[in-house]
Amino acid sequence: MFQTPKGTRDIFPEEMEKLNFIIGEFIKVFEKYGFKPLDTPAFESFELLSAKGAGQSLKDEIYYFKDKSGRELGLRFDLTVPLSRFISNNPNLPKPFKRYQIGKVWRYDNPQALRFREFNQADIDIVGSKSMLADTECLAVAAECLQAIGIKNFYIRINNRKLLENILEKFNVPKNKMLDVFRAIDKIDKIGLENVKKELKKLNVDISFFSMLKIEDNYRFLEEIKNKFGNLEGLTELKEILDLSKTLGCDKYLKIDLSLARGLEYYTGPVFEVMIKDVQVSCGGGGRYDNLIKTLGGPDLPAVGISFGLDRIVNVFSKKLEKNRIFVASASDSVRNISLKIAKELRDSGKICDIDNMDRKLSKQIEYADSMKYSYVIIVGEEELKRNSVKIKDMKTGKERIVEIKNLKSEL
Amino acid sequence: MFQTPKGTRDIFPEEMEKLNFIIGEFIKVFEKYGFKPLDTPAFESFELLSAKGAGQSLKDEIYYFKDKSGRELGLRFDLTVPLSRFISNNPNLPKPFKRYQIGKVWRYDNPQALRFREFNQADIDIVGSKSMLADTECLAVAAECLQAIGIKNFYIRINNRKLLENILEKFNVPKNKMLDVFRAIDKIDKIGLENVKKELKKLNVDISFFSMLKIEDNYRFLEEIKNKFGNLEGLTELKEILDLSKTLGCDKYLKIDLSLARGLEYYTGPVFEVMIKDVQVSCGGGGRYDNLIKTLGGPDLPAVGISFGLDRIVNVFSKKLEKNRIFVASASDSVRNISLKIAKELRDSGKICDIDNMDRKLSKQIEYADSMKYSYVIIVGEEELKRNSVKIKDMKTGKERIVEIKNLKSEL
Repeated sequence: MFQTPKGTRDIFPEEMEKLNFIIGEFIKVFEKYGFKPLDTPAFESFELLSAKGAGQSLKDEIYYFKDKSGRELGLRFDLTVPLSRFISNNPNLPKPFKRYQIGKVWRYDNPQALRFREFNQADIDIVGSKSMLADTECLAVAAECLQAIGIKNFYIRINNRKLLENILEKFNVPKNKMLDVFRAIDKIDKIGLENVKKELKKLNVDISFFSMLKIEDNYRFLEEIKNKFGNLEGLTELKEILDLSKTLGCDKYLKIDLSLARGLEYYTGPVFEVMIKDVQVSCGGGGRYDNLIKTLGGPDLPAVGISFGLDRIVNVFSKKLEKNRIFVASASDSVRNISLKIAKELRDSGKICDIDNMDRKLSKQIEYADSMKYSYVIIVGEEELKRNSVKIKDMKTGKERIVEIKNLKSEL
Repeated sequence: MFQTPKGTRDIFPEEMEKLNFIIGEFIKVFEKYGFKPLDTPAFESFELLSAKGAGQSLKDEIYYFKDKSGRELGLRFDLTVPLSRFISNNPNLPKPFKRYQIGKVWRYDNPQALRFREFNQADIDIVGSKSMLADTECLAVAAECLQAIGIKNFYIRINNRKLLENILEKFNVPKNKMLDVFRAIDKIDKIGLENVKKELKKLNVDISFFSMLKIEDNYRFLEEIKNKFGNLEGLTELKEILDLSKTLGCDKYLKIDLSLARGLEYYTGPVFEVMIKDVQVSCGGGGRYDNLIKTLGGPDLPAVGISFGLDRIVNVFSKKLEKNRIFVASASDSVRNISLKIAKELRDSGKICDIDNMDRKLSKQIEYADSMKYSYVIIVGEEELKRNSVKIKDMKTGKERIVEIKNLKSEL
């Protein structure tokens, strides 16, 4: 029997309902902040995806193929590189260009729990602004999105690639080793501090660097780094973000964390990672990438964005989504057409209403309605019809009552 | 410079807003009829997609690739074959299983106007019911979806593969030529009746068959076929659909059309095609496929569905989607933090509200708001702030007025 390809999965209705709810709430927040929707193809030229400064380091994880004319293509591994290509193709759009995009991306990773080779992302990006207000807007949107779907227990790690680079330079890490060191540091959550220290030792990095990870308060952290190394550029940017985040109401979620690096090669400034507290799972991340668009042949435009891993968010989403759903059952074949009329009227009034389309007897219809968790079953029977009525069964309580057909809409 | 791969395209914000609106309205209708969301991977095993009875005839149009472990995969060319695979993998779901799925599909077709190699589909299917009520529900959903987005000028062609087969048998078309004949007939809209007749002559089909295409009234058509060939099975099914469609309120959109065949090989009974009248464009189609699931190794379950071509629907969608969108402009740098507070309050009240994040001077901010078609610009200036007020500019009329900040929410 055919199965889903390795590393991919079907999303069943119950989970899909959650995903749709989350996407709907996210879109409302995105749009409130002025972001507009964009879509790009699922695949791009392989040369674009694997370009230096874009996905070169991810090259082996890209699903690669050729079309029938021999063009080399690849499934997109994020929504940022396609956006950068889009901006290059459309350099004259008014700036800032604020867009959101929701879609699948693919990486030929080793499948793990909560990690698939096909996953769903929702991204917001702001192209054209150098201001830290753009970065802070992304953080405010992230915080508001999670709150909108009832997730309160989260925080956002922030760091700055420039600051990290400047500090690592003080520890004598050469430029060409920087990305390797970022990747090693980034694995703290996965492999633990001690193993990261070992990796860094191999890379000849002085691990006394890690003593700075212990500072809890954001502003005190900035102060101590400043005292130790002087007023590095990344410090000013982080301070601006902290200040602006107070006005935008997301300051209490931010946590400066020098161990945050983010693996992708295109980040140039602030980087973010959204963490769900209880499970210590990252459900999103992003940062500033001021060189990517130019690197890919486009105009010299700064950009910043954040990306949500929707599959992980669905996974920690615990809210019960209850919809009032009605099933119309027919007690005998003679009433089926009347049942259909009742269903049509309920649907016309906007209600979710299903009906047996398998010519089953009543008990089987009610069994089905029960297994599908309908809220109410309307039982249409000849006896009740004589008095222009039907029976309503509340599937939660099991209670039944007789209601006149003309009152059905208001009674449900 | 990098471009979108041949046959694909970006969907710009203005079009994407329409697409999102259409999808939102469609989902409401799907759910009202008891359909639930499902998602499947973008790619499936190539063997599944190209299996006899599934996509064998489309084999050359499938984007084929191997993953890093050498598995042969292909991008899905529809959402029906993946659903059938899903049903095979989950044979014990309660029946009928009614699902909707919205997503991209890919075919390596020759790109034409309105026809891309990547396109967006919205599908509904009902698995497990043999009843013509299932087919009619699909038709009712199709009619209601188009009405929900303001498209009134449409009709739905219906035919029946069994009927078509039975009639073609009377014209001595052998079984193994049936699919070729279906394909030829199906091209009437594209290449014209005369060219179809030529193709059929090559296939040795008696073209007096086409005299039956002229009957306008649905019931009279059934009557005449019955008189001519006897009570063929497909006839009864079509009559049931016509009768049920009266109760479900979609009868006036149905038009029996013997020239409708649908190219895909898996249809076994009624087939549908949704046509937009003025432009004579098909924006959806479907039908019954009672053998596909079994053919692909699953249980012996009947199924019927309909699929909307969203890109085409966006193209004929003319409704203006107007949202109240506000831009907060700062007359000087000293008021930027107050502007930000105002924006935050408006967003908190649910309004769509943007703000300059590029440190531009006032005239540039207003230029931007104008180019982005904001409905209102709030101008925050020191003078007005002294009286706790701001200026509101209505971007449609150009009129300005002074409003107290505390009254902003109600005034916009």
